[in-house]
Amino acid sequence: MKEVTYRVRVEFGDCDPARIVWFPNFFRWIDAASREFFVVCGVPPWHELERTRGIIGTPIVNTEARFVSTASYGDTLEVRASVPEWRDKSFVQAYRILCGERLVLECKEVRIFAARREDKPGAIRALPIPEDIRALCS
Amino acid sequence: MKEVTYRVRVEFGDCDPARIVWFPNFFRWIDAASREFFVVCGVPPWHELERTRGIIGTPIVNTEARFVSTASYGDTLEVRASVPEWRDKSFVQAYRILCGERLVLECKEVRIFAARREDKPGAIRALPIPEDIRALCS
Amino acid sequence: MKEVTYRVRVEFGDCDPARIVWFPNFFRWIDAASREFFVVCGVPPWHELERTRGIIGTPIVNTEARFVSTASYGDTLEVRASVPEWRDKSFVQAYRILCGERLVLECKEVRIFAARREDKPGAIRALPIPEDIRALCS
Amino acid sequence: MKEVTYRVRVEFGDCDPARIVWFPNFFRWIDAASREFFVVCGVPPWHELERTRGIIGTPIVNTEARFVSTASYGDTLEVRASVPEWRDKSFVQAYRILCGERLVLECKEVRIFAARREDKPGAIRALPIPEDIRALCS
Repeated sequence: MKEVTYRVRVEFGDCDPARIVWFPNFFRWIDAASREFFVVCGVPPWHELERTRGIIGTPIVNTEARFVSTASYGDTLEVRASVPEWRDKSFVQAYRILCGERLVLECKEVRIFAARREDKPGAIRALPIPEDIRALCS
Repeated sequence: MKEVTYRVRVEFGDCDPARIVWFPNFFRWIDAASREFFVVCGVPPWHELERTRGIIGTPIVNTEARFVSTASYGDTLEVRASVPEWRDKSFVQAYRILCGERLVLECKEVRIFAARREDKPGAIRALPIPEDIRALCS
Repeated sequence: MKEVTYRVRVEFGDCDPARIVWFPNFFRWIDAASREFFVVCGVPPWHELERTRGIIGTPIVNTEARFVSTASYGDTLEVRASVPEWRDKSFVQAYRILCGERLVLECKEVRIFAARREDKPGAIRALPIPEDIRALCS
Repeated sequence: MKEVTYRVRVEFGDCDPARIVWFPNFFRWIDAASREFFVVCGVPPWHELERTRGIIGTPIVNTEARFVSTASYGDTLEVRASVPEWRDKSFVQAYRILCGERLVLECKEVRIFAARREDKPGAIRALPIPEDIRALCS
């Protein structure tokens, strides 16, 4: 199973008055790691896929995260992303965030490959998992 | 069970190139609704509780969210927060985000009341649920 | 001169470890107030103007801000937006952020009405100020 | 004059529906580059300086920025930070953001070294520029 590491340095402004990372920022980095996973596997950027195949991105269907330890500014985090499961019209993406050896967060998401719906402006629909993208990422 | 509603208007900058809310922003609003819940119930602000009782906030232990429909700029969302379960040293906080009648997101978190650890700078520990705060919120 | 007020409540996560608003967040609110100004004046949302007239928004050309006093979570801020000057292909938008009577920030920006450039994907160009929009906003 | 470079990769979520960086994000990176400048020059982190000398950070007094060209996700930006001028109780910090050879943004700020005011909780005051920090950074 492929695993891609996204590195991030925690900044002063990522932390809240309790001086620890304000938790929504972990989801910013998880989303960046999600995209990085596909980029490193050789999948073209979304704006190119939108033009060629109508894929606008991989929006999230659900997420589960466990916050194991805290991080603060100055820390460098590694977000390790993988895709442990491919389904027909969705996939599971998993993440472990580490600060050195220490586990900071574990997260598991279901995402889809999305296209715009022609019948309903603004709405999106799930596409069948593209076989070529799955092959690149496995 | 008390329920508190936090209203938010989705802004242009909350949306990503797919023109829908970039999902980490939902967690920003959930966190604001979490604090709003305590404020509306009459709990003093964290900076006051830190001074008087060493409580620095209610950091998150884990979260589960289900993204049911999308939202975009111009939408007004209602985040309805409640605390369906109190445990010894943690509590469950639940949220439903609605756009009019339409369900956008459901979320359930475990949070703690945290204090700093004297023995380990930067680290935090869970406090027993304060009875008076629990009474205010029930 | 029309003035439109955008209200925002400062949240815990908007503040940094110094317990005051982390300054980039002021620009989030200024941008929201900029759009609010046009919405209140009766200008259609950008996604509608993009479809009908190719206007994708009002990107910023330059900004000057003076941070007069601090704000923290629990504060309610009023961002008062106006357009003191219209030029041929740009306009000046000004803001005063107040916390009650207290001035928190003053800001002056130059913005343009932008369209995509056909010759260069991703690049944008300034449009002449649309007379009807100017009339709505004056 | 010392110059420190802070590198940032633009992410999908940093971009707005016009598919370009939403401008408040540039100030996030500028603030990170400001702190990076001091760290690289050998100045201890703010939480250490708060404990030892009461310095809680370098809040901004005013800023001027000129947005020269756009950036989008996938771009890697270099934020080049310097301190062109030291005053008695403030300093000027300047930034150039580049995408390869292309200039994206120029910015000039006035900042102070701040301490908390004992007489007014939540308020801050400017300290005289610490000579040792100035020496490290020049």
